[in-house]
Amino acid sequence: MILTSLSNPTVRHLVRMRDNRARRREGRVLVDGWRETQRALESGLVPLGVYTTEDDVDDDREAVLRRGGDAVRYVSPAVMEKIGYGQSARGVVAEFQTPSWSLDELSPPGDALILVLDGIEKPGNVGAAFRCADAAGADAVLLTPAHCDRFNPNAIRSSLGTVFSVPSAVAEESQARTWLAARGVHVYAARVESSRPIWESKFVGPTAFVIGSEARGLEDRWESDDELSVTGIHLPMRGRADSLNASVSAAVLLYEAQRQRGS
Amino acid sequence: MILTSLSNPTVRHLVRMRDNRARRREGRVLVDGWRETQRALESGLVPLGVYTTEDDVDDDREAVLRRGGDAVRYVSPAVMEKIGYGQSARGVVAEFQTPSWSLDELSPPGDALILVLDGIEKPGNVGAAFRCADAAGADAVLLTPAHCDRFNPNAIRSSLGTVFSVPSAVAEESQARTWLAARGVHVYAARVESSRPIWESKFVGPTAFVIGSEARGLEDRWESDDELSVTGIHLPMRGRADSLNASVSAAVLLYEAQRQRGS
Repeated sequence: MILTSLSNPTVRHLVRMRDNRARRREGRVLVDGWRETQRALESGLVPLGVYTTEDDVDDDREAVLRRGGDAVRYVSPAVMEKIGYGQSARGVVAEFQTPSWSLDELSPPGDALILVLDGIEKPGNVGAAFRCADAAGADAVLLTPAHCDRFNPNAIRSSLGTVFSVPSAVAEESQARTWLAARGVHVYAARVESSRPIWESKFVGPTAFVIGSEARGLEDRWESDDELSVTGIHLPMRGRADSLNASVSAAVLLYEAQRQRGS
Repeated sequence: MILTSLSNPTVRHLVRMRDNRARRREGRVLVDGWRETQRALESGLVPLGVYTTEDDVDDDREAVLRRGGDAVRYVSPAVMEKIGYGQSARGVVAEFQTPSWSLDELSPPGDALILVLDGIEKPGNVGAAFRCADAAGADAVLLTPAHCDRFNPNAIRSSLGTVFSVPSAVAEESQARTWLAARGVHVYAARVESSRPIWESKFVGPTAFVIGSEARGLEDRWESDDELSVTGIHLPMRGRADSLNASVSAAVLLYEAQRQRGS
């Protein structure tokens, strides 16, 4: 049975879920694209629906559809166009419940390498940072404050689906600090005003890098207090512009840690 | 005299210059935004026109307008909306002739650090790579092949205007190779298939990093030949995704060189 009616309740529901507020209120995630859907399925998420046009199925994709199981529904091209994301619908849309992954469920190794994204709201930047965390082998990504959304369709897309494969949690700064302090993690906050270049620190023990948004930086957040010691570091800026994209800063820091660890 | 007529020949010309093909054919560059216009002016480009609405002028901007001199024309908000870029017109549009900057005009220092972008066509990626080259203190950016365009409005924007402040040239690969060989530059090509991690090389002499597009990589380009020795290196990819954005790879490589140089 191919779903062809544009007024079908499922189609109307999926279109409604394209509204970020409605989507978050209902606790849903929409995933576009085969690779992204595959990573969501591999992370253990159970699909509420996997929608595709028959034409788009080849051998590789068949594996996604096998995992999708009973949730797979075939749809007409017109329906796909309606439920797909923007102008570049990519053959498959999958709906999941938003994962409840939280700080308590993270179990980083003893020499953990953790990326903290503070106040980074643009989904494209969140996704790009996940992609760097994935490539550089970060053990977890924390997003503060707690309303940050790593499952926005744009974040999923620019992460290449790695928002599903890199362990992560959203939390208020105070919760994240307590969690990091309890694990003896050394915290380094990237601050343009710091005089300590990144190369003067040793990142071989459990390490977290805190990156703020390029527009506002960290302001008065992520300072040292009695509970948690935070070291300010900066990436030397040698040119005319005065900031780097958050994902670029994250990549340089994480790869420097990997270099020091001899990995 | 404020320019208010939407059918004024200047307005029609500027609107036509929003078409990339027409713009390139006429050898023009359109720059949007104060910071970007400032960087274009500082690089020595002579403006054909600097268009702004009176309302947008404050002290900082006055400096741009002083440099703009006789080329400054005030326009109505309606005209600005028409000649501005997309949905986020930013108070000023400036028109220049495309700079003829070429390989021959580059004069990098003896220990030059050079970024070569091969086959990177997406303007956003070109601009982001310039931004990283600027931050990490690269001495020049080369773009191959010769039809690459660093002055697309999207490239200018995502570079924060650094396409004007970082010395650059476009060239065919063969020309770029001859130029690099003549200067004794050690060339490192980022290849996923290389087994040599980036940390096993010394980047203290004159160094160029060649980065291909994330979609296609370098394929058979930038291999060693009798004239030029090219060393393949790779940035270890520890996660699920198999590529990094070109600007991210560039930043990690350039900052590693700066670390080694003790700067």
